[in-house]
Amino acid sequence: MTTMSDQRSDRPAGRHDAEPDRVPADGTSASKPEPRVDVDGLAAHLLGRWPDERRRARERAADPRFWKDESLSMDEHRERVLEQLRLMVADEDKQVWLAFPERLGGGDAHGANLAGFEEMVAADPSLQIKAGVQWGLFASAILHLGTPEQQDRLLPGAMDLSVPGAFAMTETGHGSDVASIATTATYDPETEEFVIHTPFRAAWKDYLGNAAVHATAATVFAQLVTKGVNHGVHCFYVPIRDPETMEFLPGVGGEDDGLKGGLRGVDNGRLHFDHVRVPRTDLLARYGSVAPDGTYSSPIESPGRRFFTMLGSLVQGRVSLDGAAIAASKIGLAIATRYGAERRQFASASPVEETVLLDYATHRRRLLPRIAEVYAAHFSHDRLLDLFDDVFSGAKDMPEQREDLETTAAALKATSTRFALDTLQECREACGGAGFLTENRITSLRADLDVYATFEGDNTVLLQLVAKRLVSDYGKHLKAATKTPAGAARFVVDQATDAALHRTGLRRFGQTIADVGDPRRAAGHLRDPETQRELLADRVAEMVEQAALALRPAQKADPETAARIFDENQVALVEAAKAHADLLRWSAFTEALETIEDPGTRRVLTWLRDVFGLTVIERNMAWYLLNGRLSAQRARTVTSYVDRLLLRLRPFAVELVDAWGYGQDHLRAKIASGAEAQRQEEARAHLARLRASGDAPVSEKALHKMGTRLRS
Amino acid sequence: MTTMSDQRSDRPAGRHDAEPDRVPADGTSASKPEPRVDVDGLAAHLLGRWPDERRRARERAADPRFWKDESLSMDEHRERVLEQLRLMVADEDKQVWLAFPERLGGGDAHGANLAGFEEMVAADPSLQIKAGVQWGLFASAILHLGTPEQQDRLLPGAMDLSVPGAFAMTETGHGSDVASIATTATYDPETEEFVIHTPFRAAWKDYLGNAAVHATAATVFAQLVTKGVNHGVHCFYVPIRDPETMEFLPGVGGEDDGLKGGLRGVDNGRLHFDHVRVPRTDLLARYGSVAPDGTYSSPIESPGRRFFTMLGSLVQGRVSLDGAAIAASKIGLAIATRYGAERRQFASASPVEETVLLDYATHRRRLLPRIAEVYAAHFSHDRLLDLFDDVFSGAKDMPEQREDLETTAAALKATSTRFALDTLQECREACGGAGFLTENRITSLRADLDVYATFEGDNTVLLQLVAKRLVSDYGKHLKAATKTPAGAARFVVDQATDAALHRTGLRRFGQTIADVGDPRRAAGHLRDPETQRELLADRVAEMVEQAALALRPAQKADPETAARIFDENQVALVEAAKAHADLLRWSAFTEALETIEDPGTRRVLTWLRDVFGLTVIERNMAWYLLNGRLSAQRARTVTSYVDRLLLRLRPFAVELVDAWGYGQDHLRAKIASGAEAQRQEEARAHLARLRASGDAPVSEKALHKMGTRLRS
Repeated sequence: MTTMSDQRSDRPAGRHDAEPDRVPADGTSASKPEPRVDVDGLAAHLLGRWPDERRRARERAADPRFWKDESLSMDEHRERVLEQLRLMVADEDKQVWLAFPERLGGGDAHGANLAGFEEMVAADPSLQIKAGVQWGLFASAILHLGTPEQQDRLLPGAMDLSVPGAFAMTETGHGSDVASIATTATYDPETEEFVIHTPFRAAWKDYLGNAAVHATAATVFAQLVTKGVNHGVHCFYVPIRDPETMEFLPGVGGEDDGLKGGLRGVDNGRLHFDHVRVPRTDLLARYGSVAPDGTYSSPIESPGRRFFTMLGSLVQGRVSLDGAAIAASKIGLAIATRYGAERRQFASASPVEETVLLDYATHRRRLLPRIAEVYAAHFSHDRLLDLFDDVFSGAKDMPEQREDLETTAAALKATSTRFALDTLQECREACGGAGFLTENRITSLRADLDVYATFEGDNTVLLQLVAKRLVSDYGKHLKAATKTPAGAARFVVDQATDAALHRTGLRRFGQTIADVGDPRRAAGHLRDPETQRELLADRVAEMVEQAALALRPAQKADPETAARIFDENQVALVEAAKAHADLLRWSAFTEALETIEDPGTRRVLTWLRDVFGLTVIERNMAWYLLNGRLSAQRARTVTSYVDRLLLRLRPFAVELVDAWGYGQDHLRAKIASGAEAQRQEEARAHLARLRASGDAPVSEKALHKMGTRLRS
Repeated sequence: MTTMSDQRSDRPAGRHDAEPDRVPADGTSASKPEPRVDVDGLAAHLLGRWPDERRRARERAADPRFWKDESLSMDEHRERVLEQLRLMVADEDKQVWLAFPERLGGGDAHGANLAGFEEMVAADPSLQIKAGVQWGLFASAILHLGTPEQQDRLLPGAMDLSVPGAFAMTETGHGSDVASIATTATYDPETEEFVIHTPFRAAWKDYLGNAAVHATAATVFAQLVTKGVNHGVHCFYVPIRDPETMEFLPGVGGEDDGLKGGLRGVDNGRLHFDHVRVPRTDLLARYGSVAPDGTYSSPIESPGRRFFTMLGSLVQGRVSLDGAAIAASKIGLAIATRYGAERRQFASASPVEETVLLDYATHRRRLLPRIAEVYAAHFSHDRLLDLFDDVFSGAKDMPEQREDLETTAAALKATSTRFALDTLQECREACGGAGFLTENRITSLRADLDVYATFEGDNTVLLQLVAKRLVSDYGKHLKAATKTPAGAARFVVDQATDAALHRTGLRRFGQTIADVGDPRRAAGHLRDPETQRELLADRVAEMVEQAALALRPAQKADPETAARIFDENQVALVEAAKAHADLLRWSAFTEALETIEDPGTRRVLTWLRDVFGLTVIERNMAWYLLNGRLSAQRARTVTSYVDRLLLRLRPFAVELVDAWGYGQDHLRAKIASGAEAQRQEEARAHLARLRASGDAPVSEKALHKMGTRLRS
């Protein structure tokens, strides 16, 4: 595997002519380190807490046997991916078993597992998702919802792929609203069996990976009914196909979801059940079990809390989609940035050379703020993995941490999957027609990533969950602590930077914005991290408070009025959740800066963090103006200061994407291979020869000009 | 063919309870017509100026023989589309020949031709684009750049598809910068031939439809060199394959572009030429010819103007992509809206029914403003077609009109193709996982439309052209007329509403914004079309003026300084061009309202126009606040007023998309077929039976509540 740092393209000539930092805030500019990017050092740093697992997963992703083959039909692609899963199981390192119990051959290593898992997207997103279905959903349901006895009995087959499985939760009629699924599992004490039944078409299980072709069993979610009482959604282990004939077992039916917009290597399908009987002991019984006589019992008394605990144990899907979406964004941006740093188009100030795309202000605006946002997303994902590992390793497994984890995962997954789609589209367009060719990878990656925005929880629904949590915490906090808006603001900051991101002790200043009217001082002010933090945090605090106040009357209203009040505030709630995610990402980026040891690299990354913070503020500028957080004068400075930062970052663009550690075997895009620079070199040599030979034609335009000059 | 209006779904119960218009601006609310949508009347109206051609093209698009078959491999898809082209030629109506001369069997009907052509996107975008390559580019080059003799000689084969052709303009090294292509055509007076030659790899022709497999000839653009002078880019008719063997002719080479992100039914490929000789008479000679002795002559003296005249004659590509992108947006929105009006998810105020998606504020915000924008885009496209037909029919073929046409086409194509991609993505996500299935059409349509954003002129480049024109016209006008900003503003408005949109005599008031502080009056003010016009037009005027002033020093600067100045203003210029497009679209929508006869329909469309105008203002709110065009108080009213309008429009959502006239055979999406409502009906009936039987289980949650109540 070659890495990008081995074959970095030459820096543009103007590299060290980057505009000097004209706005010394503290008079120390003389001692400022020379800006640079230590690519290898940064790359090593970005590998994070589980560098070995991540490196091994990347090596696998660089192995041609795991690459997406774009030429395959849907059926062939599905078989190839199943084969790839088998190769992974056969692999000595058993990386795909990391999350499972040591007693069964696993590693009990939850964070490390996800760190490796999310890198698979670089090989083929279908492979990532099919592996996710098998080990992250089907086997995970057994692991997290089953008893130790059930784990011992059912996990080995799921782990070694002798039982390919589907995760049968979603129904045609119910996606993100899992509590309302209609499949029933009714206990029959006569035979000590559950009867799994699909009462109508809308209750068919749908969009299930592995279900169309390969699965021989499924973890089926259904309303558990015993003794005339519905105890809510529980999960059952249900064999669905004869492993010999691969025919559906009696009572089981289904169909193929067929072609999809992407992920064609995953065999999504539908399942339905006609009074299918499974033994009482195949209810995955960690959070609820039924005695032979039909008596239901559960360690969690509240049915609501029980439901959310069961669902929460499956949060890793969202966590890993956040990581995979960021990895895909990196690949797209690395391709577009490398091409944009070589490709020339339209005349420039130089009479012989055309302008390099990245030297256009529009092109810098397209790509560089997205590079900054990827860094923010990367560091916040690292913190999310920490949180995930803490909870699932049991190191810090308290209800509060679980709730933090779920809220953070929801906020970040919704943000990064949306971001990935926009970014890949921007990258594709930034590469022009070449970006549309499959050989340049971006369209393929985007098509596969599309569904990340709605699976494992629809993004809009997830953002509503986040907002709900913010508002409810605001309410609790308001009661307990303070009733002033300042106190509430502090609460939100604490919430975002401390609670969710590991109580890092980031301080918050009560500083108010003084409009001093001097653009230099304004820029100095804007790049002060405390200013950025305050602007980002105040927005969350203010939006949450406004929503909380607006929603308050709903508590005592009749259902219709309550629904109307909620409806009136729904858009604002989603906006508040997005603002919360932005704050999380900004805080993680800022916190990470302190861990960058090389001073020149830290300086460049600090510019990048400023670009992230300030473009978020720029996007929401109307809010800041309307809410009196920025004066018109200062607001105008934001855009011009961002433009200056982008110009400064320009010479480091390629290095910043190289530091993500993806080599040619990961990018696999002809336009990112240096071919463009080579073509230009060839053209240049040809034109030079032509000029030297004296055979070069003179242009009619030049003759006209000469004629005009001669006549005058 | 069934149409949507035959099978419209029931209106939601609350349909006539739409919030009454609470803000009578003129005290005439009592006499206001009942809001309604006369679907059939509106649909007929929307067929526009060439209803028969459009209807016939839609009938063809509803014929299964022309549908995209998603199951085909790339090779099979390519063959199917070629076959479809043959079917179209064989068709008695010869709709594909409409633009060609009557003497050759055509219709000399340019606007009518495009009206039909752009509807093909509903059948298969690959079909539209392959037809566009054959008749809109290859044959059009002969038509517009050839002499009558050349037309007579070369058009019949291109028209009847006996000569499938490629349009060989773009090179790997040069996309939107056509003037810089490097292929040469050097005249050899000895043999009276041109020698077509590709000097290096970057000069290979690339991304050419028809070139990979089917083309036997090509219209090749190359630098015409004779007597040692390069006369710039001209077009040559070049046979490339033996029609019998389909082998490349001697000296011609090429390769297949292979798989693409979409449009897989179009065989894009590369071509290169090694001293390929074509007769002197196969230079398409309308704008430039070479005498036997090698003397060059042209009816247009300036090489620059000659080049732009040649390119301008091929503007129809951009015009038709605008239409096709709007049609594709309509199909996506019709699917998502019909589904959103049926699909229920999550509990509502009602204890037995879940909430219909479109009754969520977030869902209304996703879809309804886009429906409004499609109407704006539709009406502005109609005006663009008028302009196109005026120029190409010769009715009003003056340089000024040509320039207006090119600017308007560039502005609208860049806007609508971008809009289509965002809209289709939003529609796909609004349909959840179902939106990702190919059977529901949206992802397929989006993948095919992707490249519309960069072909026929990269959108960013097009917007820069528009901005350049705006700035240069501003300069001219400033000199000629007035030097006050008010005069400049008037100029821009005239430019947008009068010049480009047919001098309709729209008035403009010099009204300034008085902040009266009363939200009702503020809303009344916002829905005043003169307010909207002023806000939209002032923004264009101000942005263009700012850019013009900022660019002025570049005129007398050295090249490097000039390049830097341009770079600093590039992002703002692109924004100004977008603002111009928004104004064009708003003006066209407003103008069109006067042509809607049914008063109730006009009322609903007026709300929709207000939504379009106000969401554009909302998107750019920071600008309005920073430039003192809106007070904070009034700005806050914009969002709440838009939300009120969306609530009012909600009951008409399905009718508004039905009026676009696309039936099931155009939408071809299972989720838009009423299947969802049927599934819900079945589920409802099942639950009703269960309740009636007394066998329905009671929920544990309900028992808990009861228990609590009993204990207390």
